[in-house]
Amino acid sequence: MVTAGPHGVAVILVSPRVSENVGAAARVMKNFGLTDLRVVAPRDWDEDRARRMARDGADVLAARRVVETLPEALADLTLVAATTARLGDDRAPVACDPAEGARRLLAAVGPAGLVFGPEERGLTNRELDLCQLAVTIPANPAFSSLNLAQAVAVACYELSRHAPVDGLRRPLPPADAPPPASGSEVEGLMQDARDFLLTAGFLNPQNPDAVLLHLRRLLARAAPTTHDVAVLRGMMRQVRWYAGEGSKND
Amino acid sequence: MVTAGPHGVAVILVSPRVSENVGAAARVMKNFGLTDLRVVAPRDWDEDRARRMARDGADVLAARRVVETLPEALADLTLVAATTARLGDDRAPVACDPAEGARRLLAAVGPAGLVFGPEERGLTNRELDLCQLAVTIPANPAFSSLNLAQAVAVACYELSRHAPVDGLRRPLPPADAPPPASGSEVEGLMQDARDFLLTAGFLNPQNPDAVLLHLRRLLARAAPTTHDVAVLRGMMRQVRWYAGEGSKND
Repeated sequence: MVTAGPHGVAVILVSPRVSENVGAAARVMKNFGLTDLRVVAPRDWDEDRARRMARDGADVLAARRVVETLPEALADLTLVAATTARLGDDRAPVACDPAEGARRLLAAVGPAGLVFGPEERGLTNRELDLCQLAVTIPANPAFSSLNLAQAVAVACYELSRHAPVDGLRRPLPPADAPPPASGSEVEGLMQDARDFLLTAGFLNPQNPDAVLLHLRRLLARAAPTTHDVAVLRGMMRQVRWYAGEGSKND
Repeated sequence: MVTAGPHGVAVILVSPRVSENVGAAARVMKNFGLTDLRVVAPRDWDEDRARRMARDGADVLAARRVVETLPEALADLTLVAATTARLGDDRAPVACDPAEGARRLLAAVGPAGLVFGPEERGLTNRELDLCQLAVTIPANPAFSSLNLAQAVAVACYELSRHAPVDGLRRPLPPADAPPPASGSEVEGLMQDARDFLLTAGFLNPQNPDAVLLHLRRLLARAAPTTHDVAVLRGMMRQVRWYAGEGSKND
């Protein structure tokens, strides 16, 4: 999760044409804990279409700032990264991959922002020049044009990956992992299996251990718990009873 | 870029309702070099809407496989990861973050796949049980429901981050690695086990699936090979014969 604090990272959409993309951007910002959405000179604006896509991000969408020019949108920001599909030219001062871009934005001492160009053309050189970093999402060079909302999703995800985890927390793995089976529990099971599978004629009495070793390794790969071993032993007991061994022995 | 080769990672969309999401998924797959799209029982299908969103991924969309059930979609896959927003319960055998999930899918010796649930509800427990891994994209726990096409984007991006950049190919498994069991081989074994363990009185006829699921997860953790599955089926056949079923039936 990215911090939602005063120094969170703003998302700036330059002249988006598809209102659904703005709504979807708001939604995924909310998913990853971002809240500061700025829209520069939107085209063909349709509030309903945007809202329909925003879902959990309806508040982010509603709180967006709409401005006329990119410099206005960037006025209070201290570090700005542009996103661009094009690399390898001198279009930007510092080119970096999404991970590096995320680290730098999150380490900025003042408010930072991430800029996305219009759907059809991306950012112009003029717009790029207003940014300190250029972030490229590495994609198939022949098909590098990402959908705007999907590019925002990848960027928010990448910011979230690098955000400190102390504030709003990521889900923790379950702390109550079941105890793994001990060596003696596994040996007990294997001994039971050996006895039974010999009796049942599945293991060759001349050489029972080759197939048994196969089963042992299969079990080892599963990293069985104490409970797993108990289930398997219970299963074997029941099968023996079903096979009539109980009555034979009693 | 992820390989588009014979062992690329398939993307499986379960019962999507918004055709645009399928098109957008195809587009972002193409962006990141994935080609194998499978759609299970789509609802309200609208080819035009899907195609409009597909752009560069029009060929991926056109080549998609449409099937009726998730097991059909998974039949040839040897390692399958489900995506889920929920964590911290026992819904899946092995939970991992997107990076770990990507690494495991890319390291699979056979064809692998990544499954996404329907827009409204995600995957059911039943669907999750058909997968060996559960991948959770870490989002704000209070707003963790990602748009389907954006979730696919994040997952494709993460796969791409971990794919080797030299060829388009995934690293080849050691030549002598035994072939992993396919989904249909595992299903065949589980069906045999269900029949037998019900007959033998180990499974409760009122609720056979809880214990069976335990066994299924244990097996999934072992990443069984085709040979492993054959050994287990052979063992079960012999035990049934020993239990007198052969003579009972002949």
